[in-house]
Amino acid sequence: MSISVVPEGQLFLGIDGGGSKCKAVITDEAKNILGVGISGPANPLHGYEQTLNSVVHSAQLALEDANLSQTEIVNLIAGVGLAGVNLPSLFEKVAAWQHPFKQLYLTTDLHIACLGAHDGGDGAVMITGTGSCGFSWVNEKSLIIGGHGFPHGDLGSGAWIGFQAIASVLLALDDLGPQTSLAEKYLAHYQAADALDLVAKVAKQPASFYATSAGIVFTEAEQGDKVAKEIIETGASYISNLARKLWCENPPRMTLIGGLGPLLTPWLEDDIAQRLSKPCNPPEIGAVLFAKQQVEAQQKAG
Amino acid sequence: MSISVVPEGQLFLGIDGGGSKCKAVITDEAKNILGVGISGPANPLHGYEQTLNSVVHSAQLALEDANLSQTEIVNLIAGVGLAGVNLPSLFEKVAAWQHPFKQLYLTTDLHIACLGAHDGGDGAVMITGTGSCGFSWVNEKSLIIGGHGFPHGDLGSGAWIGFQAIASVLLALDDLGPQTSLAEKYLAHYQAADALDLVAKVAKQPASFYATSAGIVFTEAEQGDKVAKEIIETGASYISNLARKLWCENPPRMTLIGGLGPLLTPWLEDDIAQRLSKPCNPPEIGAVLFAKQQVEAQQKAG
Repeated sequence: MSISVVPEGQLFLGIDGGGSKCKAVITDEAKNILGVGISGPANPLHGYEQTLNSVVHSAQLALEDANLSQTEIVNLIAGVGLAGVNLPSLFEKVAAWQHPFKQLYLTTDLHIACLGAHDGGDGAVMITGTGSCGFSWVNEKSLIIGGHGFPHGDLGSGAWIGFQAIASVLLALDDLGPQTSLAEKYLAHYQAADALDLVAKVAKQPASFYATSAGIVFTEAEQGDKVAKEIIETGASYISNLARKLWCENPPRMTLIGGLGPLLTPWLEDDIAQRLSKPCNPPEIGAVLFAKQQVEAQQKAG
Repeated sequence: MSISVVPEGQLFLGIDGGGSKCKAVITDEAKNILGVGISGPANPLHGYEQTLNSVVHSAQLALEDANLSQTEIVNLIAGVGLAGVNLPSLFEKVAAWQHPFKQLYLTTDLHIACLGAHDGGDGAVMITGTGSCGFSWVNEKSLIIGGHGFPHGDLGSGAWIGFQAIASVLLALDDLGPQTSLAEKYLAHYQAADALDLVAKVAKQPASFYATSAGIVFTEAEQGDKVAKEIIETGASYISNLARKLWCENPPRMTLIGGLGPLLTPWLEDDIAQRLSKPCNPPEIGAVLFAKQQVEAQQKAG
């Protein structure tokens, strides 16, 4: 058993909580990573108690990973970015939590992603993973565009692309829409014999389920399939338009983050793609930066 | 208290069971209606026990309405058309039911709708209500086209139209899609202040919820709104194509049934609209016709 040595100076906890997982990182004041932890879902819109449990559990795992005692949790200053807390009622509910940390600073998952991407500075991010959303933070003013969720919103996201593909495949299999190479690929991917079988496998599935097949659509679009191309072009056009609206806020930098970014970038309009910058840090480090900014602001004010 | 007099001859029970309700009718041999009853949902895909309860309960209400004793249930020959039993496993499960009737003949809701529409003869039906589907019955051969469900299928249905409208309204409110008069109408209809509020009211709602707003889209399309027109034209084009595929089966008649029929017909291609016939009877009478046909077929065979 190793001897745990508590590092000098204040320790920070950065939390990036979303619908599928909660990621924690423990850093020193210079944001050097001492330990990481990943736990279950942390979207308070879909489960308040579960969110709090996931935040604490991921912090405990990060303490363990950092070889620190679990009792150190009371000394951590936590920056917490959560999905869903852009709704004021949910923000208030989470902010009222009797948490185990020294301090807790709460904001949205979008805000910490943006702070992380631009190393704590102003900027804009577009997120294209299971869902899609745009966010800018310029001169203390935030703007959220899109992000209305699946299946009615989130154009250009993995879930939206997979959903559009399945709708197109069903039309093609019924010979009520254009034929597409997606049909064969989707039947194989879901091990479905026909349209009825495909519907049975995809009906009532969550967004994350649809998102897993988005890669097929990019591949077929690159191979020249017209239906696949139209889906990707429509989604990419939406993301390009989202970028244009975000640029109106005059962010100094813009970053495309999320799992779909590398696949989507070549389909964006050239001027949009060329102005994208790489993210400086992941969202959980953005959460640490947020906590540090809040502490500094309080020190100045006090 | 009135004295119940059991009519002479065999009594028939016709059942039309679907996702929102179960409709029962009791008729004499000449399909004169003696009583009707309506109970809860009867789609075995979404609840097997509930389906059986709804069938029995609607029959009991119809017996009461016909001023017949509840004990007469054992003398009824039932024709039962249910959603979902086009899946062989569900058909077997319902067919194995130890029902309280003298006889039970089971088929799909589509089949009884078609038999009802064409007074027991061959024909085709297109159903456009909450969902959409095509069905033909010609020379003992059935064909189902579409009907894959919401939101991935059922183009041209009320749910599909309402869903497309909400997606378009969200794009317009974010200024990421064409402006449309649907935006103002939908915000008012759902008493929503903005996009975020609208999403909160419509997210995760069932197909029937979306279908209730389809009338708005027809109205705005008739007023010339381009976005509304494109939604209705896309849906109507799908239904026209569905009709063309059904005509390939050479049905002697074709009928458009379901709540959206009157609104949709003017938007169908002229040659399709002109060849539509009015339904002879509602689906629950189709269920009675089905039961009578089965009895006659058994008498011939036996």
